[in-house]
Amino acid sequence: MSDDQSPVIATARRAQEAATRLAPLPRTARDAALSAIADALTARTDQITAANAEDVKRARDAGTPEAVVDRLALTPERIAAIAADVRDVVALPDPVGEVLRGSTLPNGLELRQVRVPLGVVGIVYEARPNVTVDAAALCLKSGNAVLLRGSSSAYASNSALVAVLRDALESAGLPADAVQLVPGEGRESVRELMRARGLVDVLIPRGGASLIKTVVAESTVPVIETGTGNCHVYVDEHADPDTALRILVNSKAQRPSVCNAAETVLVHAGIADGFLPRAAEALREAGVTVHGDAAWQAADPHVLPATDEDWASEYLSYDIAAAVVPSLDAAVAHIRAWTSGHTEAIVTSDTAAARRFTALVDSTTVMVNASTRFTDGGQFGFGAEIGISTQKLHARGPMGLPELTSTKYVVTGDGHIRE
Amino acid sequence: MSDDQSPVIATARRAQEAATRLAPLPRTARDAALSAIADALTARTDQITAANAEDVKRARDAGTPEAVVDRLALTPERIAAIAADVRDVVALPDPVGEVLRGSTLPNGLELRQVRVPLGVVGIVYEARPNVTVDAAALCLKSGNAVLLRGSSSAYASNSALVAVLRDALESAGLPADAVQLVPGEGRESVRELMRARGLVDVLIPRGGASLIKTVVAESTVPVIETGTGNCHVYVDEHADPDTALRILVNSKAQRPSVCNAAETVLVHAGIADGFLPRAAEALREAGVTVHGDAAWQAADPHVLPATDEDWASEYLSYDIAAAVVPSLDAAVAHIRAWTSGHTEAIVTSDTAAARRFTALVDSTTVMVNASTRFTDGGQFGFGAEIGISTQKLHARGPMGLPELTSTKYVVTGDGHIRE
Repeated sequence: MSDDQSPVIATARRAQEAATRLAPLPRTARDAALSAIADALTARTDQITAANAEDVKRARDAGTPEAVVDRLALTPERIAAIAADVRDVVALPDPVGEVLRGSTLPNGLELRQVRVPLGVVGIVYEARPNVTVDAAALCLKSGNAVLLRGSSSAYASNSALVAVLRDALESAGLPADAVQLVPGEGRESVRELMRARGLVDVLIPRGGASLIKTVVAESTVPVIETGTGNCHVYVDEHADPDTALRILVNSKAQRPSVCNAAETVLVHAGIADGFLPRAAEALREAGVTVHGDAAWQAADPHVLPATDEDWASEYLSYDIAAAVVPSLDAAVAHIRAWTSGHTEAIVTSDTAAARRFTALVDSTTVMVNASTRFTDGGQFGFGAEIGISTQKLHARGPMGLPELTSTKYVVTGDGHIRE
Repeated sequence: MSDDQSPVIATARRAQEAATRLAPLPRTARDAALSAIADALTARTDQITAANAEDVKRARDAGTPEAVVDRLALTPERIAAIAADVRDVVALPDPVGEVLRGSTLPNGLELRQVRVPLGVVGIVYEARPNVTVDAAALCLKSGNAVLLRGSSSAYASNSALVAVLRDALESAGLPADAVQLVPGEGRESVRELMRARGLVDVLIPRGGASLIKTVVAESTVPVIETGTGNCHVYVDEHADPDTALRILVNSKAQRPSVCNAAETVLVHAGIADGFLPRAAEALREAGVTVHGDAAWQAADPHVLPATDEDWASEYLSYDIAAAVVPSLDAAVAHIRAWTSGHTEAIVTSDTAAARRFTALVDSTTVMVNASTRFTDGGQFGFGAEIGISTQKLHARGPMGLPELTSTKYVVTGDGHIRE
């Protein structure tokens, strides 16, 4: 099926062999390798920053905006922070070997369902080189080999980081091929990765909506969709207005560039008269432009008119779409029609409303009287996050280490046969 | 993205609407509908057998082998058994609403990860009409709407069964569109189903290898691969020969036509001299033809020569491939090279061998001193089975009701915002 001559396929084969060697290793071996990686990142900081300087220069020469260049840049402080994150991963509980179900069957067979590594995890990502180390650390902790396909703009940085990681793995007695960069900078190498079914166990695209859409449409390797967030805040008829304002402004403006920021606010008609002018003002004071329906426009002269494009938008900016809805069910219908399925919040003091909203909304996370900004592996106490899955199979919501595993049934008898 | 004019897409949209109505229903409502279905199947047996007679006549007229016709045929006894299976599903624990994780975060937010229905489940299947009812019952129990795409040879039977199911749903106050046949008998309707991403949450192909391969390669809807089983029995150097013979013959010959039957036996060289002649004879007595390597051919004159095709074969017949291996690791390497990842068994009295085999084999189920035939939802005590997943994402091994669910995080605060 696969082209044996392809360097991408050859890389995937080496990853699979490395995964076979990783699978039986106990936690101590994997943790020792991660500690070696953290040490090596610190020890070889100069080498990493030198490689990074090439990427930064290339980006500046190409006229890249300084904000984007800043995301690309690695300073000694940032490398120290990346190394500290790796040490945090060492301290996390080991997902591998956890027994999820277990019973002794009536015939005496002992049944156990045990967590095992997935095998080979492919990560396709854009932008920041810190993802290279973060993703590798989480995959290694969970016993997986990882194939990293970063953006060409960070190629020198990623190559230097992966060289450090591979040396550290070898020094700890683990196969270097457990961490590999996917060769080639063009689209063709991503395409080959997406077709490496049987060699790559899962592909996780991290980046913009168009990258994710391409991978989902073209991959025969199973994919976990991550990260697009058209999140809603619904202010119920029975909401305390002060609480609603606080949650709304925080959900939108605390950090607008991330996937768990709110992009639309829906307000119940029963509370709109008093609430809309206050909300429009509070949002404006937070620097937010409101794109509203007729009711919002009537409530505040600064509100711009909203179109279907606004309901569909993941702005990732100081903009918010705003509508008044006649009922909770209408709010749910609006959300179902437009959401990316990430996070929706309800603000209400009515338990029945909270319960109905929670039951009807079909997204990874429903917030009741809390900001959408809390949907995050770190905030949820998972200690680390490989991404936020917006699909329903395998993993949904913030993905920590358990989500990077599969399971295996182990059934033990003493000569049992089926009658 | 999707063609709004397509009857398949229109069906999927109705399924999605029905799923929205099913999601908030409590167990009692779903169980009442299932009981109504069981009653209706019994009450309308004549109507079902009459429709089935059309399919049977058509199959006989087309010269279908009588064994296949038998699988298609529905008698009053078989319909009663199908109704009884539905009642068994009623009695199973409700997966929906189960809290999988829960904690109070340091800031006081209450975090719960709750099982929820997947939404719309598509089943593409061949052959037996009993799958129509089994699959619908499991999907309804787990709160899902189901789209059924059976084979054209059972079209009249499936149509009659689905009519009974839909009437029973309506009589119980549930949306009839929670159970629908996918319109059209051609390949095009399967293709549309596979492209209905966003409307269909998961596709489960049940049937032959070629159907499964097509769905996996062409579907943009997430797929759960099921059922191909090239299963191995490895007889370790430290195996009790009598136990090994019993497990080998049972794994192969107790029911050769199913996916958990053994297709290859691997024997450690250290035990081969005494074991091979006995095994060849025992298999022959059970009616099994052995396709062996040189060692097996030397041990018994009836053994036929094996080629790579034999190692790859899922015979589903009274045939078995057989080889001698120099070590446990060589057995594992053979298995990794040829297995479909379903079930592998080791027979050994050596705990270290059992442990190493269990750790290195990468399949849904590892049997230690037990027949491969035990990999089955019913045997595992799950009470029901929608199929056996041979993939690593979402579900692996026998799939019961929990595997037909996703999860949702519900986070409750009292005005929490992120600082």
